[in-house]
Amino acid sequence: MTILGCGAAAPTPSFLTTSQLVNIHNNLILIDCGEGTQLTLRKNKAKFQRIKSILISHMHADHTMGLPGLIASMNLLGRKSDLDIYGPEELEQMVRKVWHLTGTHIEFEVHFYVTCINAPSIIIDESSYTVKSFPTKHRIPTCGFVISEKKDAYKLKPNIRKRYRLNHLEIRKLKRGEDIEKDGELQVNSKFCNPPDSERSYAFVSDTSYSQKVVNEVANCTLLYHEATFEKRDDKIAKKTLHSTSEDAARVAKEANVGSLLIGHFSNRYRDLSTLLNETKEVFKNSELSQEGKTYSLN
Amino acid sequence: MTILGCGAAAPTPSFLTTSQLVNIHNNLILIDCGEGTQLTLRKNKAKFQRIKSILISHMHADHTMGLPGLIASMNLLGRKSDLDIYGPEELEQMVRKVWHLTGTHIEFEVHFYVTCINAPSIIIDESSYTVKSFPTKHRIPTCGFVISEKKDAYKLKPNIRKRYRLNHLEIRKLKRGEDIEKDGELQVNSKFCNPPDSERSYAFVSDTSYSQKVVNEVANCTLLYHEATFEKRDDKIAKKTLHSTSEDAARVAKEANVGSLLIGHFSNRYRDLSTLLNETKEVFKNSELSQEGKTYSLN
Repeated sequence: MTILGCGAAAPTPSFLTTSQLVNIHNNLILIDCGEGTQLTLRKNKAKFQRIKSILISHMHADHTMGLPGLIASMNLLGRKSDLDIYGPEELEQMVRKVWHLTGTHIEFEVHFYVTCINAPSIIIDESSYTVKSFPTKHRIPTCGFVISEKKDAYKLKPNIRKRYRLNHLEIRKLKRGEDIEKDGELQVNSKFCNPPDSERSYAFVSDTSYSQKVVNEVANCTLLYHEATFEKRDDKIAKKTLHSTSEDAARVAKEANVGSLLIGHFSNRYRDLSTLLNETKEVFKNSELSQEGKTYSLN
Repeated sequence: MTILGCGAAAPTPSFLTTSQLVNIHNNLILIDCGEGTQLTLRKNKAKFQRIKSILISHMHADHTMGLPGLIASMNLLGRKSDLDIYGPEELEQMVRKVWHLTGTHIEFEVHFYVTCINAPSIIIDESSYTVKSFPTKHRIPTCGFVISEKKDAYKLKPNIRKRYRLNHLEIRKLKRGEDIEKDGELQVNSKFCNPPDSERSYAFVSDTSYSQKVVNEVANCTLLYHEATFEKRDDKIAKKTLHSTSEDAARVAKEANVGSLLIGHFSNRYRDLSTLLNETKEVFKNSELSQEGKTYSLN
């Protein structure tokens, strides 16, 4: 996952607005698309024509304003393959209206899918991964996303098939992780198989205030990106605008038992982000500040 | 005049899309507003809350996509003063639709004025300058702009009023540049006055193919910015897309007898712009390539 922008409200020389690029098994997924995202993708030398899916959390301008222009540039550069966009109901109308009024004709297929705003739902189900959307707690309908690897099969050890003359039924059982009966004896799975790689999952949560429902949805994920717009002392503004403080983000990470936490969506009011980070670490130690242009690997 | 962006079609790490900031007698005018203009204004430390007027040449995305976000950021930063926007008919609809669908509420007055697309017209008439719009020749309705200083009055030499006991009527005549009769004799204006500073004018022409009408509208201006999207060898693409080549731009400058020419709106296809510049200079010597972030003074 590469952070393209992690500032709140408006792009500044310090922080661009929200956008992230996720590469899962060589599939590119863009999450949110603030103004200037197409330029940041280019600066990061991302292969943006290979983006298959775009997930948009909510309609606020700092998460959407770059979308009409990004797709227009994909078109200018000769894209032919379809593009799937998952987001709020109003998104398609906004994008198509801008294209219409700016004389932009897109030559490839763009499919808009409306994300469910009432309940969690699997919005992408590919052979090796899924994407789940779920509602967060913000001023307008907003979704978070969890991108999860699918459970791999148990892996047969080299040459094991011939050596033990395993039949089709036995192989299926072993790949499911089960033990088998062979020559009248129970044989443990580990004799034949290596366990699957552990599944990794990445959760994106922005924008939101603290929410118990979010905790449930991101439980046990490998990496959680959670907005932490404000320091603890600005808790009142956070509550009023339905954003999170450093402590809120850390609480979600702790209660959801995630592997590590990355905070972002920083308010422009802070020159120095060390307070945000320290406050987060007080509650959840394995925390980090988002850095634009940095890629976070889930290993 | 400061070049904020001078690339065509889409922002790239080499060139941003069209935008310029003009400071005339301490009044700030923004011309065109490609995606990311708000960020470029900040990077150039421009006082963008002081922008009084925004001129938009045409609806194409590379000239308009930054407008909804720029105004949203002015609002976020607490702007109270009115903003005047001059542009195509569809502009207000586009901007207000984006604001509506992204939940953006602008707290100050934004006035949209539709520029006339059939004939030249004075769209701004301030005490010290005017702005004229005029149609160019592009695929969709497009306007160029000329920002002109108003003719200053002739300036009385120091202490001249008392020394010659000039009355109100005589002063008015002198300030208009006329001679006066004093003590029964005709006295030449230059005895009392210095001539006014010469009026400067800046013409902006993008996008367009070569047009004789444009030549007439920008005649004798101090500085002409004219698009030169393509090299001469790409003349066919220029004709097809109703853009200009280096030679077209230079021809306009020469025929209009302008002081100097600045070319811009460069196609992304050229790594090296020296051919564009050389071809321009062959026809009109006093030519220059636009440079982003550079301020051009009209002296």
